[in-house]
Amino acid sequence: MKIYGDRRSGNCYKLQLLLALLNKQCEWEDIDILKGESRTDGFLQLSPNGKIPILELDDGRVISESNAIMHFLAVGSNLMPTTEFDMAVLLQWQFFEQYSHEPYIAVARYINLYLGMPDTHRTEYVAKQAGGYRALAVMEARLANSPFLVSNYLTLADISLFAYTHVAHEGGFDLSAYPAIRNWIKLVEAQPRFIPMQA
Amino acid sequence: MKIYGDRRSGNCYKLQLLLALLNKQCEWEDIDILKGESRTDGFLQLSPNGKIPILELDDGRVISESNAIMHFLAVGSNLMPTTEFDMAVLLQWQFFEQYSHEPYIAVARYINLYLGMPDTHRTEYVAKQAGGYRALAVMEARLANSPFLVSNYLTLADISLFAYTHVAHEGGFDLSAYPAIRNWIKLVEAQPRFIPMQA
Repeated sequence: MKIYGDRRSGNCYKLQLLLALLNKQCEWEDIDILKGESRTDGFLQLSPNGKIPILELDDGRVISESNAIMHFLAVGSNLMPTTEFDMAVLLQWQFFEQYSHEPYIAVARYINLYLGMPDTHRTEYVAKQAGGYRALAVMEARLANSPFLVSNYLTLADISLFAYTHVAHEGGFDLSAYPAIRNWIKLVEAQPRFIPMQA
Repeated sequence: MKIYGDRRSGNCYKLQLLLALLNKQCEWEDIDILKGESRTDGFLQLSPNGKIPILELDDGRVISESNAIMHFLAVGSNLMPTTEFDMAVLLQWQFFEQYSHEPYIAVARYINLYLGMPDTHRTEYVAKQAGGYRALAVMEARLANSPFLVSNYLTLADISLFAYTHVAHEGGFDLSAYPAIRNWIKLVEAQPRFIPMQA
């Protein structure tokens, strides 16, 4: 198995962190999206949507979408709920991440950190702030009442949301008014075999 | 169990179509998002992210995010793959739908159909076209080589993508250059117990 990804991307860090927590190894090939390496013909053959990360199996089959790859890697592990309700809530948080969280917090971080906040993107950057804070408020409300997002135990949902939340300040988000999120970040970082983002 | 939703929303239609295909019933409460009914204090108590649809269980617990609710409703049915790879690919298409498809095709349709294409939204509407066609091209490439998105059988992934794809013309998208998508739409519509969107 081989993962194609960019180590600075939160979507790729989800897989690195998951593999570390599962104590699993996987071959890794760096793809530099700023150099257009996710838009070459060769890469688009593997991943028609042109996004990273992807997982290539030994038989050549490919899975894309970070959150979907996580399910494949974590089958049968203790990061997966055993009840149908908790599994649905885990998915709820992952879809929330992709629709209501990542498009604001990750994109604001991308504009600031990857692109260096060019004037051409400043309006977009500012527009991302309100949506990002809305997503943080939804997380704060949940984490004020539960140590982890789904229940009392760590799941894939926490890894998915941790990836961009713990670097939200790089997108201009101030977490000082979100104590439950800050506690949860510390809790995730305290998990056995936790690894930081390799920026 | 009760679903809160708006019958004109593709995200809500996913659940109606799924229940029909599964030959299951579920109580339904209409929520009119244009009248602000998804932003009342009462609704935000149920669904902190303020989005529809949501599923309320008989014991009061709630699941949000259409694609997550589908997994809860379809557990053990023949719309769920039995291999780990196919399950991951099913999720891949559902995350693709929420990140690369719905934000373009559903939002363009919303501006045109719900809002009546006001001048204030015309720039946003035009900007949605390129992303929508990119998503349709990814689907077309897959469906040119497979009758359904995951494999040779209907899954939740087809229902998720069908919801907004079959009404893409209401967002200004022309499917005439996408023959594989048009065949797949006919194939989904031919499934036993299929129901159309109740617009």
